[in-house]
Amino acid sequence: MKDILDAYAAGAIDAEEARQKLLQTFYAHGEEFLLDLHRRERLGFPEVVLAESKSVEQVIEVTRRILEANGQVCISNLLPEQADALRAHFSNQELRIAGRCMTIGPAADPLGCVGIITAGTSDIPYARECALVLEFMGVEVLTAYDAGVAGIHRPYVSLQEMGKARVIIVLAGMEGALPTLIASITDKPVIAVPTAVGYGIGGKGIGAMISMLQTCAPGVLVVNIGNVIGAAAGAVRILRGFRKDI
Amino acid sequence: MKDILDAYAAGAIDAEEARQKLLQTFYAHGEEFLLDLHRRERLGFPEVVLAESKSVEQVIEVTRRILEANGQVCISNLLPEQADALRAHFSNQELRIAGRCMTIGPAADPLGCVGIITAGTSDIPYARECALVLEFMGVEVLTAYDAGVAGIHRPYVSLQEMGKARVIIVLAGMEGALPTLIASITDKPVIAVPTAVGYGIGGKGIGAMISMLQTCAPGVLVVNIGNVIGAAAGAVRILRGFRKDI
Amino acid sequence: MKDILDAYAAGAIDAEEARQKLLQTFYAHGEEFLLDLHRRERLGFPEVVLAESKSVEQVIEVTRRILEANGQVCISNLLPEQADALRAHFSNQELRIAGRCMTIGPAADPLGCVGIITAGTSDIPYARECALVLEFMGVEVLTAYDAGVAGIHRPYVSLQEMGKARVIIVLAGMEGALPTLIASITDKPVIAVPTAVGYGIGGKGIGAMISMLQTCAPGVLVVNIGNVIGAAAGAVRILRGFRKDI
Amino acid sequence: MKDILDAYAAGAIDAEEARQKLLQTFYAHGEEFLLDLHRRERLGFPEVVLAESKSVEQVIEVTRRILEANGQVCISNLLPEQADALRAHFSNQELRIAGRCMTIGPAADPLGCVGIITAGTSDIPYARECALVLEFMGVEVLTAYDAGVAGIHRPYVSLQEMGKARVIIVLAGMEGALPTLIASITDKPVIAVPTAVGYGIGGKGIGAMISMLQTCAPGVLVVNIGNVIGAAAGAVRILRGFRKDI
Amino acid sequence: MKDILDAYAAGAIDAEEARQKLLQTFYAHGEEFLLDLHRRERLGFPEVVLAESKSVEQVIEVTRRILEANGQVCISNLLPEQADALRAHFSNQELRIAGRCMTIGPAADPLGCVGIITAGTSDIPYARECALVLEFMGVEVLTAYDAGVAGIHRPYVSLQEMGKARVIIVLAGMEGALPTLIASITDKPVIAVPTAVGYGIGGKGIGAMISMLQTCAPGVLVVNIGNVIGAAAGAVRILRGFRKDI
Amino acid sequence: MKDILDAYAAGAIDAEEARQKLLQTFYAHGEEFLLDLHRRERLGFPEVVLAESKSVEQVIEVTRRILEANGQVCISNLLPEQADALRAHFSNQELRIAGRCMTIGPAADPLGCVGIITAGTSDIPYARECALVLEFMGVEVLTAYDAGVAGIHRPYVSLQEMGKARVIIVLAGMEGALPTLIASITDKPVIAVPTAVGYGIGGKGIGAMISMLQTCAPGVLVVNIGNVIGAAAGAVRILRGFRKDI
Amino acid sequence: MKDILDAYAAGAIDAEEARQKLLQTFYAHGEEFLLDLHRRERLGFPEVVLAESKSVEQVIEVTRRILEANGQVCISNLLPEQADALRAHFSNQELRIAGRCMTIGPAADPLGCVGIITAGTSDIPYARECALVLEFMGVEVLTAYDAGVAGIHRPYVSLQEMGKARVIIVLAGMEGALPTLIASITDKPVIAVPTAVGYGIGGKGIGAMISMLQTCAPGVLVVNIGNVIGAAAGAVRILRGFRKDI
Amino acid sequence: MKDILDAYAAGAIDAEEARQKLLQTFYAHGEEFLLDLHRRERLGFPEVVLAESKSVEQVIEVTRRILEANGQVCISNLLPEQADALRAHFSNQELRIAGRCMTIGPAADPLGCVGIITAGTSDIPYARECALVLEFMGVEVLTAYDAGVAGIHRPYVSLQEMGKARVIIVLAGMEGALPTLIASITDKPVIAVPTAVGYGIGGKGIGAMISMLQTCAPGVLVVNIGNVIGAAAGAVRILRGFRKDI
Repeated sequence: MKDILDAYAAGAIDAEEARQKLLQTFYAHGEEFLLDLHRRERLGFPEVVLAESKSVEQVIEVTRRILEANGQVCISNLLPEQADALRAHFSNQELRIAGRCMTIGPAADPLGCVGIITAGTSDIPYARECALVLEFMGVEVLTAYDAGVAGIHRPYVSLQEMGKARVIIVLAGMEGALPTLIASITDKPVIAVPTAVGYGIGGKGIGAMISMLQTCAPGVLVVNIGNVIGAAAGAVRILRGFRKDI
Repeated sequence: MKDILDAYAAGAIDAEEARQKLLQTFYAHGEEFLLDLHRRERLGFPEVVLAESKSVEQVIEVTRRILEANGQVCISNLLPEQADALRAHFSNQELRIAGRCMTIGPAADPLGCVGIITAGTSDIPYARECALVLEFMGVEVLTAYDAGVAGIHRPYVSLQEMGKARVIIVLAGMEGALPTLIASITDKPVIAVPTAVGYGIGGKGIGAMISMLQTCAPGVLVVNIGNVIGAAAGAVRILRGFRKDI
Repeated sequence: MKDILDAYAAGAIDAEEARQKLLQTFYAHGEEFLLDLHRRERLGFPEVVLAESKSVEQVIEVTRRILEANGQVCISNLLPEQADALRAHFSNQELRIAGRCMTIGPAADPLGCVGIITAGTSDIPYARECALVLEFMGVEVLTAYDAGVAGIHRPYVSLQEMGKARVIIVLAGMEGALPTLIASITDKPVIAVPTAVGYGIGGKGIGAMISMLQTCAPGVLVVNIGNVIGAAAGAVRILRGFRKDI
Repeated sequence: MKDILDAYAAGAIDAEEARQKLLQTFYAHGEEFLLDLHRRERLGFPEVVLAESKSVEQVIEVTRRILEANGQVCISNLLPEQADALRAHFSNQELRIAGRCMTIGPAADPLGCVGIITAGTSDIPYARECALVLEFMGVEVLTAYDAGVAGIHRPYVSLQEMGKARVIIVLAGMEGALPTLIASITDKPVIAVPTAVGYGIGGKGIGAMISMLQTCAPGVLVVNIGNVIGAAAGAVRILRGFRKDI
Repeated sequence: MKDILDAYAAGAIDAEEARQKLLQTFYAHGEEFLLDLHRRERLGFPEVVLAESKSVEQVIEVTRRILEANGQVCISNLLPEQADALRAHFSNQELRIAGRCMTIGPAADPLGCVGIITAGTSDIPYARECALVLEFMGVEVLTAYDAGVAGIHRPYVSLQEMGKARVIIVLAGMEGALPTLIASITDKPVIAVPTAVGYGIGGKGIGAMISMLQTCAPGVLVVNIGNVIGAAAGAVRILRGFRKDI
Repeated sequence: MKDILDAYAAGAIDAEEARQKLLQTFYAHGEEFLLDLHRRERLGFPEVVLAESKSVEQVIEVTRRILEANGQVCISNLLPEQADALRAHFSNQELRIAGRCMTIGPAADPLGCVGIITAGTSDIPYARECALVLEFMGVEVLTAYDAGVAGIHRPYVSLQEMGKARVIIVLAGMEGALPTLIASITDKPVIAVPTAVGYGIGGKGIGAMISMLQTCAPGVLVVNIGNVIGAAAGAVRILRGFRKDI
Repeated sequence: MKDILDAYAAGAIDAEEARQKLLQTFYAHGEEFLLDLHRRERLGFPEVVLAESKSVEQVIEVTRRILEANGQVCISNLLPEQADALRAHFSNQELRIAGRCMTIGPAADPLGCVGIITAGTSDIPYARECALVLEFMGVEVLTAYDAGVAGIHRPYVSLQEMGKARVIIVLAGMEGALPTLIASITDKPVIAVPTAVGYGIGGKGIGAMISMLQTCAPGVLVVNIGNVIGAAAGAVRILRGFRKDI
Repeated sequence: MKDILDAYAAGAIDAEEARQKLLQTFYAHGEEFLLDLHRRERLGFPEVVLAESKSVEQVIEVTRRILEANGQVCISNLLPEQADALRAHFSNQELRIAGRCMTIGPAADPLGCVGIITAGTSDIPYARECALVLEFMGVEVLTAYDAGVAGIHRPYVSLQEMGKARVIIVLAGMEGALPTLIASITDKPVIAVPTAVGYGIGGKGIGAMISMLQTCAPGVLVVNIGNVIGAAAGAVRILRGFRKDI
């Protein structure tokens, strides 16, 4: 770019030519510029590698590259052999695992507090993955498991334990009624995650998801079935707002 | 049949011939026999005429025929012009109407008590039809409208008002969580009726229905969307049990 | 609570303070109160552990806890290794198994009689699980297997065997027509359970379920595909009514 | 073609040239040839004009053209204004109408007998259209309306009236169980037509259709919802076999 | 029955009493009567055992019972171990196998001829099962495999080979267009069988099935995905008509 | 409650009796207590009346009641006659309307800023309703309409205009890609609202909704099709966090 | 931009400052740059206004703006009153209409030839809209209507008439088999458009669409149901390639 | 044919007889004629063997036959054992493999250039199969992997690398937004391939497919989920146009 500026300053090219060349430069190097822009965004949430559909080699390679660039990486939907290979390969790194999810690298700076409530025991593995990712992002996590609506008092009690949390993530399968109940007794942001628990019509989380989207409680925000990383990312977006002056 | 018996008594035919003829008789007149059998069943619930897909003349004709045979008739899914025509034609009969449902003839003998709980104001027209049919069958009906889960205490309070009821019919649209909640705080039979309230994915009662089928509360029994007559009939079947010695 | 009462009695706090403190107490200990309430409900039906999505350790732990609290427990959707582990761990208990369902602890007090009718041989495993759970709840079970509609007389004959039953549970896959037929020849409560028998369009029980919800017989009550425990619980709710004065 | 033959006979072209020209001729006039072929097929069933998506002018024009070519035509899914226009325009023709279906021209030669059984009153309009089309094809039609499964004996009785019929067409909406029942008590060909009767999940004939495809009775053949013309055409195909020596 | 007749003849009971007793007799022994009736139907098509959802022991037991009663039996959806066990157990019987389908016992008397046309190589296993069942029923089978529409002439050629056939069974997966084409160039009955060939949207035969139900060719009759036994049974129903005088 | 305390203080009842009576009191008056609790929640978002399924009288009555209790009310899914009636009846109130949504009463205290971005012109009516509700809640609203992905730069530019906003609500129909794009260039919370714009497969907003749930951008939070009130309520939940110390 | 260049040339800012300012300039004016880029794209296909969901005023306003900018505009999904208003408002413009589609302004320069084949008469309105848009883009259009597969020769004959066409657009509803047939007898690009013709299962074009996606002919490219503009745009993209040297 | 011509020339038959015989000849040998016709089509794209549903022997046999006839063959959806067997059996042939796809025989003559862009790493295996098939057809392939919309600049940059390509094939799973973006910044033909990447609602590529069909960018042409061979065939159809004079 300096060359163009100098050529213009030297009168070797006129203003229009300079403009053209600058635009071309920009155009040619658009990637870097935009990557800069993109990096700011990435500060908000770590790169997540979807392992399942990749070979062991691909997972390690992609993980290594992101780790070099960002210093931290999150891998989801891990198969056992992928998890083993990553553990072996990055044994000198700070490495944590929950369910099919792994984080490598140090956790981010403290960001605030999020509560996770689950409807049943079957939802706990999802909650653990969600907590892992949140803690990796610097979030303090409060949990209340097994708060399902079949015991009508449990949602109420579980919410009592969420005191400091600025966002509540609610995980439920089956009929997925818990987020509706939680949202009707708190004014905090509620992110609902349907889990793939259920059977027959509406099974595999379909019923829970539809139920959450049809909620009669105002302001329940939903992610796809089992998308705990999306829920965590949504919560992180909210928490980051508290650190900014706008 | 007497002819066959007499022929046999008179020796005009032998036993085998008599047996053949009797079977043929039965076979030929199977309808009447089975209609007898059937009538006993009908005592349990009135004939219901689905008006919507019939002409005004057909509705009147079918109604008249059932009324003559049974002394009472219930008509559902009435269009306004059908309702008007029926009212005009059967003006000398005891005639009640709720929403798109009409009953003609005197109510049956007292049968017991059923409670109806609705989640929201939009469910009330369904509840009114359900109550009409139940009362026509001799059932005392207790109602608690607007007991939706968005106010977590409301299901609980609504149940308090159901004291004498032997069956609870719960109507809900949207996310359909109310029957799950009711069933988790009572051990009475709970019949869940999804109503066609809702929008977008899971709209027109689909979400409510799936939610009720996926319930994590044990023993919620479900009928199709808006099928208040089926729910009433199910309740009547249960109540009739209390009048029998088995 | 006594401390508050005494403080008030001693004049250390005034009535309003006492009221506040009592409410806080209640609020803080709401769980216990509500658990009491909940226990009454549980008397109606045992806790059911959904095994499938839990580890062997979790299943044993949850089972043990419920067993200590309630004296009986039912586990469903068992994987073979879970079943083996439970059998080993609770070998000193009264333990029964059918299909993927297990009960531990003594059966409840006698509660009445339920009939189970299946459409085909493939539905029998479902019926066995259903019977196990019912018997565990103190219910006498009558069965008539293979009463499918392809033999038009079979539904009729099967119903003859249901004499004493106060509720009929009908299991069917494929086109799911059997509950409709049964309900058109009895006035007893009919609970329909679609089973995951079928293929192609409407397979895995979807066709049977839809058929049952679309029934033209009045009062067929439906649970989700394969939900024999829900059906059993629904029947138990009905039977318990016969033991109460309302 | 004769020109080519003559040119070859005259030695004006050689065998290869003649072959090329003949193929070109064929290729160019393939349509006529194939139309011939096609006509044989058409003898089996009249051209059917789907009126609904056409303008009044288009319907009249298409009808006129087919009528000129074939001497008879069938029009389906008629809107009222289309029906009126056709009646006016072809007033000098033999013209019959049932529901939204019209036939113009004389009926075909006698072809045999088909039975039509309906489950409920709402299915009768479909049956009338089906009968109209069959009779137009020369088929004698026997009917038994309102043979629904809710009265278990009715299917049986209705079948008694089908004596001479070589094919049974069964129309049913709701849970669509009737074809299964009919097929389990006759060995005649059974063509099942789901009608758009029903509501909620599986409504608009979806439940009936799925039920018929999932039938546990062997050999039930199905057409799309409300496709009475397809059912009639299928029956005609079967009947025509009886007139051939193969 | 003779006792009742004699009692009447002897004047021990009057006509009304006799009538009541005869009806009771009939009622009590309805099963046998209806079984008689049913047996006639069974002559039309052999009992088919759906093996998949049964244990090896159950399959053998059911097979044995039907074989004793009827002299022939057909088993479908066989798992390899079930097939092996049947082969071992019924080694002294005439036993044929195709794909997952097995027949035991001698074929029925000759019944006529059916043609089977498949769209692609992947449909052939379905065709083989279909042919096995048909031949077991005494049907001569003509086949034309790989007649798919991607080669526009192939459907036409394949039909040429079907000369003697009175019914054409067409199997197709993917876009399922073949039955439409066949039905537009023959006036014979066409039974369409969608096969579970395909992928993505409309995969597993859904697309083929819908296509067949939406056909613009008149009179295509459809069975569920992969239901070759239903198709065979439908063809047998048609063929049997040619042996009757009505 | 004071009576019980006094009775205890006076020694008229012992501690256990007092405890029992206090619990009964609580139990009997649970509603009030919980309503208190509930009221806190309501402060977060106004009561919303779903007008569509109510009569004009019902809408006015419910509106009046809420207005008396809360001083402000929001009505959605208004039919024209309902809107007219409300305008006439509450003409002395501060009343605003957008699309099918109306607010009555003064706006709440300032709460912060939310940005609304729409993909196309067809989404603007949804945006207007959303803005109305947000402003009623005291929220400052920034808008950028027509930012659809078909012009790749538009999402980027639209985001530039959202400076002060703490939450971005993105509305899109058709393929619903916009929220994904917005979420990949901002770290603010993104709430995605599918609109009922589209046709054919995935029409009526289904495609947009699924697309938003499948997003590859982390942290997109979704509400049901057209649920602008839910989106507004979700945003309000987030904004309220900024006013609290936790 | 010249100011920055001059400031640098004058030494008022250094190279780094100049770079920063240029980037900011770009950033701030990114829209214009990208609009330039975008305009090139738009040359490929006119802006299309989706009228249906807009008010009459909006449609006129948007149309006017695009017309001023581009000199031509296409409006789709017009309601009658919108069409009338546009006709009145742009009466001094070259204006053409087909079905619910309108073009305003002169057609583009000649671009090549496209063939349109329809399966049935009901597809012709779609074809007319498609032709209108293509001709507006400078495309010569050949048409062959009513080439449906029910007459097996018709697809073949219709293709004969497509001689000069470089792309074939095939429209079909019902079972949607025509594109498969066309694609199996030509090696030209085939774009398949399902039309909303059909009923029952797979109705409204769903069956046709799935059929086209499941095609066994290689290389059939599909657009959404009724998306004739998308098909036209796809064809234009292909034709434009012939005018470029790459 | 010459015999007929000669017979006519010799006067042994008259013109009508000759015509009849010629038609019969054609009719009898229609297959060869049409095969000729068909072969021209086949030149456009190699025969593709769908391996998955065939036995190892069938795959080898079909492959061998096509190879003999055409000199080249493509096999898709290979199972590992099938791939091994083919490799062993055709070891003396030019054989290439990618993912589950194999080509045997020499590549076709150069045909032009196609670009392949993928949204994410998980789409690369699909891209490799697509490239293999294209290269086998003589197509030069340019690739840009991992151009997903989560980095908003990436689609733009990826397109820069597609300079020479006359067609762009875009593969994407999840929300499937990439083809829309690519199509909004290029006027080249865009073929969109949804891949089976995704989970929950809209998983297995359903969401991506619907998104592509709902695209707001004009002219995106779609194939079924994972149908890379269809996409390649579509591209080849377009490229072949450049080699013809029309």
